[in-house]
Amino acid sequence: MATIREIADCAEVSIATVSKVLNGLPGVSRETQDTVMAAAKRLKYRPNLNARNLKMGMSRTLGIIAEDLTVFNTPGIVDGIGVCCETRNYHYILGNLRFNKRFHHDPGYGKEKTELVMDMMDEMLSKQVDGILYIGCHSHIVAPVSEQKETRFVCAYCFSEDPNIPAVNYDDREAARKVAELLISKGHRKIGIIAGPKDSLHTNKRLLGFQETLYEKDIPYNPHLTRYGDWERDQGFANAPSLLAEGVTAIFTQNDLMALGVIDYCNQNGIEVGKDLDLIGFDDREIASVCRPSLSSVSLPLFEIGHTAADIMLDMIEKDRKPESHEILLGCSIVERESTSP
Amino acid sequence: MATIREIADCAEVSIATVSKVLNGLPGVSRETQDTVMAAAKRLKYRPNLNARNLKMGMSRTLGIIAEDLTVFNTPGIVDGIGVCCETRNYHYILGNLRFNKRFHHDPGYGKEKTELVMDMMDEMLSKQVDGILYIGCHSHIVAPVSEQKETRFVCAYCFSEDPNIPAVNYDDREAARKVAELLISKGHRKIGIIAGPKDSLHTNKRLLGFQETLYEKDIPYNPHLTRYGDWERDQGFANAPSLLAEGVTAIFTQNDLMALGVIDYCNQNGIEVGKDLDLIGFDDREIASVCRPSLSSVSLPLFEIGHTAADIMLDMIEKDRKPESHEILLGCSIVERESTSP
Repeated sequence: MATIREIADCAEVSIATVSKVLNGLPGVSRETQDTVMAAAKRLKYRPNLNARNLKMGMSRTLGIIAEDLTVFNTPGIVDGIGVCCETRNYHYILGNLRFNKRFHHDPGYGKEKTELVMDMMDEMLSKQVDGILYIGCHSHIVAPVSEQKETRFVCAYCFSEDPNIPAVNYDDREAARKVAELLISKGHRKIGIIAGPKDSLHTNKRLLGFQETLYEKDIPYNPHLTRYGDWERDQGFANAPSLLAEGVTAIFTQNDLMALGVIDYCNQNGIEVGKDLDLIGFDDREIASVCRPSLSSVSLPLFEIGHTAADIMLDMIEKDRKPESHEILLGCSIVERESTSP
Repeated sequence: MATIREIADCAEVSIATVSKVLNGLPGVSRETQDTVMAAAKRLKYRPNLNARNLKMGMSRTLGIIAEDLTVFNTPGIVDGIGVCCETRNYHYILGNLRFNKRFHHDPGYGKEKTELVMDMMDEMLSKQVDGILYIGCHSHIVAPVSEQKETRFVCAYCFSEDPNIPAVNYDDREAARKVAELLISKGHRKIGIIAGPKDSLHTNKRLLGFQETLYEKDIPYNPHLTRYGDWERDQGFANAPSLLAEGVTAIFTQNDLMALGVIDYCNQNGIEVGKDLDLIGFDDREIASVCRPSLSSVSLPLFEIGHTAADIMLDMIEKDRKPESHEILLGCSIVERESTSP
């Protein structure tokens, strides 16, 4: 590989001039810049970014800590971060905590998990990252990010209790409002809900958004039409018959898997989903498009969450500017399929 | 953050001694090593890995180029690479080419894709990676990796024509042998196949493995029972009736999506899959476990592909040792579900 000296010789300028041009520093005429860049290209010069970053005191590299890369939400978020980094000329290092594999889907956040996070943050700081993006595999509060004061953080698909750490998430409440509006616009007045567990943040925000919309449309909220599940398919199956017995004409299940359980029950009992019963899920995973009938569902803005989180981080790094609110909520959209009547 | 000088002062040794200990160099007693490490820990010293790597001439960092991180195979492979890197004390930088998003799933490998790959390789070399792992989003030949002579490559879930570049893939032929053996062991003699396109490497290896096993079991191969599809669901649906009319008692579809099409046809026509007809798919994606009846399928060793590719790369870096064969094929397993009779 060419050295700076060879480029200087080739371009017939000093080494100092080549160095200025390659590092984007001022004090060199446009013409000389072009000559140097052309020589660098001819000689296939490749800058040693590690050396340059060391000199410049920043790495133009972000750390991404993913709680579990193999969870459905994470690749799309990393995809969005990547596009933002590419546009703004940054790199990233990805660390995968493998929480679901290591802890068998235990949602708790104990000492062992905290230590893994702290170790990974240490590693990333050793690589001189300019900031760390933390991706949750479900929405929860991530304590360790506020303990580490040496760098900047942005949370994606999770939260911190520290108001100085921005968090980018999707808007559960507004998404549930959209579901209610859509079902009401189709003429439904008795709508069943199969929610998540009672202590889930998601469950409660979605119930709130749904109820708000009912009130706005002068439809009283009937708590007997709400069931609480555990996000699993059999809870959809188990709760479908009693909701149907209450006379509901539509069901909103708070994830896609529970909706599949409702479809199972209906398919086995001659109830035509999308005709006899409208059904909307949440998450819009691949299973929503492949089940039969296919499932209308709330689609999460995963790419946008990643892109926005990275944009916020790079503004913090480059412009020392934080977002006005530390909680940024992005809108969801509903993908309509066979499970809702046209 | 503590400097080396502060650690030296704290441990009451020279700066040179601290430097030797922190860089793992010889010439320091065990006792002094412990004293220095304890001081470093007390002072929360964090090594600047970029600086150290620059000095040492290697980065202990691998580059991973993923053709598309959001394709189903890729997170599992990255997961495996990550575990191997963690065990062997390496980091990685991940680059995502976003081929499926940028090129709308076009499988061709034209000038534009090649340029994206070359640019990303340049970027990674600028970050002084010790080698590059390339992950295909489907199995195909990746030309650019053999053009770039400045670093080491290992292909995962794809191939290079260059015999110096190891490639780690799953064994299509052996997987199809397992499918044939399982179905024959269940008493099937007339087995339909819905294959992929005729020009696909996968299609042909799987047909070969299937036919071999038929011959071994003295069952003549009947080409009328093989149909070629395009991996899409409707091809499963379209080919099911004519195969059933031929009297097949089992069908092997070469991916899960086409198997769903067969299930659709059977569900609509009162044919009980798993009882009237045995059905096995390929890939074992999430859809295989959620469809009804659930689908028996060939599960791909994604984690193992990643782990093996990284192990090979690190042996090349650390021991200058290449695998004996440049094509490493890992075994698949069959996950049995409701679509095959017990």
